[in-house]
Amino acid sequence: MNKNIQVNAAIIIIGNEILSGRTQDTNTITIALWLNSLGVKVQEVRVIPDIEDIIVNTISKVKKKNNYVFTTGGIGPTHDDITAKSISKAFNVKYEVNKEAYKILENYYKPGEFNEGRQKMAWTPSKAKLILNPTSGAPGFIIDNVYCLPGVPSILKSMLGGLKNMISGGKPIISYTINLRTVESEIAKQLTKTQNKFKHVEIGSYPFFHSGKIGVSIVIRSENQKEIDKCSKEIIDFMVKKSIKLVERN
Amino acid sequence: MNKNIQVNAAIIIIGNEILSGRTQDTNTITIALWLNSLGVKVQEVRVIPDIEDIIVNTISKVKKKNNYVFTTGGIGPTHDDITAKSISKAFNVKYEVNKEAYKILENYYKPGEFNEGRQKMAWTPSKAKLILNPTSGAPGFIIDNVYCLPGVPSILKSMLGGLKNMISGGKPIISYTINLRTVESEIAKQLTKTQNKFKHVEIGSYPFFHSGKIGVSIVIRSENQKEIDKCSKEIIDFMVKKSIKLVERN
Repeated sequence: MNKNIQVNAAIIIIGNEILSGRTQDTNTITIALWLNSLGVKVQEVRVIPDIEDIIVNTISKVKKKNNYVFTTGGIGPTHDDITAKSISKAFNVKYEVNKEAYKILENYYKPGEFNEGRQKMAWTPSKAKLILNPTSGAPGFIIDNVYCLPGVPSILKSMLGGLKNMISGGKPIISYTINLRTVESEIAKQLTKTQNKFKHVEIGSYPFFHSGKIGVSIVIRSENQKEIDKCSKEIIDFMVKKSIKLVERN
Repeated sequence: MNKNIQVNAAIIIIGNEILSGRTQDTNTITIALWLNSLGVKVQEVRVIPDIEDIIVNTISKVKKKNNYVFTTGGIGPTHDDITAKSISKAFNVKYEVNKEAYKILENYYKPGEFNEGRQKMAWTPSKAKLILNPTSGAPGFIIDNVYCLPGVPSILKSMLGGLKNMISGGKPIISYTINLRTVESEIAKQLTKTQNKFKHVEIGSYPFFHSGKIGVSIVIRSENQKEIDKCSKEIIDFMVKKSIKLVERN
């Protein structure tokens, strides 16, 4: 396998509101698709509560196992926002006022509005770099390979653009989907054969239901377009031989 | 804290399609809300790829740390469906044909349609109990404290009802939300005070944007209604004192 494909990342969603089912997480899909386009593969996602020990332990583990770690949530002004403090502990550095963040926030708010709660958002791990926030002022931060973003999806999205040049991915991962009017069990044997033959692609099989009709999406992923072409040809040939209807491919 | 609240669970989402951003996971919120209603608190969620070693290692760890573990995905007929085999390894038991599952599937399909792919769905860890599937035949299974469900959200939902009597939770966790027309930094100090005072409740603070207006949802969670009442009274009193507008509470 091409070494380039091995640039990987973990996403750590920090927030009781996701664990309790109060809030539907959408940040995972946003970050995963954005990382794919930069050639970075998400290896694992964890959702963890706003508990310092758990954040510290989780970050300490995943930062070693991944090229990049992205956290979301817990960088606002309230008591349950403990990400910056916890990340400082995970790196064994001071949790302190970041002068640049302080200036940004001081300029962002009207005179007299930069209160104690808001000043908390200027605290980061010592020597953290900032991630600028074009939407609502309060920056995220980077320490080593850990990138800390807010939990509010619209704000998070607005901050990813500015990060693009800081991520060194491998070749972008290409995805090709073949939707067939069949059921998984009819194609399972062939897919096993094809997957065994093409070790450099990852073949996924996903049943779907559309307008009352069932089908299967076959998703072929690789950083190598030629391998995808060869693999998809084999699947299409099989489909034609078995008179399975193609719904679409793209 | 009441010991009852400490019945906890982990949710393990198995599937490359979630990590790649191809598919939005919705099973977490379904399972989390259902578990809440049974008095079980979700402590962690992990999304992991269809890779045997990772599934085995993850399950081996989380089954020790949680009262219940729920997995979703990877129990279909294709090559990437390796959950049952991996869970067998995690428990060091045989992966074999489950006779009851075989009968269910044999009866479910028309004569001649119970092909090799479908027969694979009758394989489970040795001595696993089955989770019946009213939607599409193929059962899930239970081994010790690990409950394995399919990844297709509609099928998963249809199977939860039958599991209800098998889960022994603590007292149901009650949630009370107060939506205020304010910003987090205005109430951060008070919320810290209130949280420090009421150790038996969990107070979350979440900014929201509705119809062009901003606000903050304060979510109070506990298994103890009286504690929630006292805590919410303190927050409402503060709100009245500071002339912060209440949007709604429920």
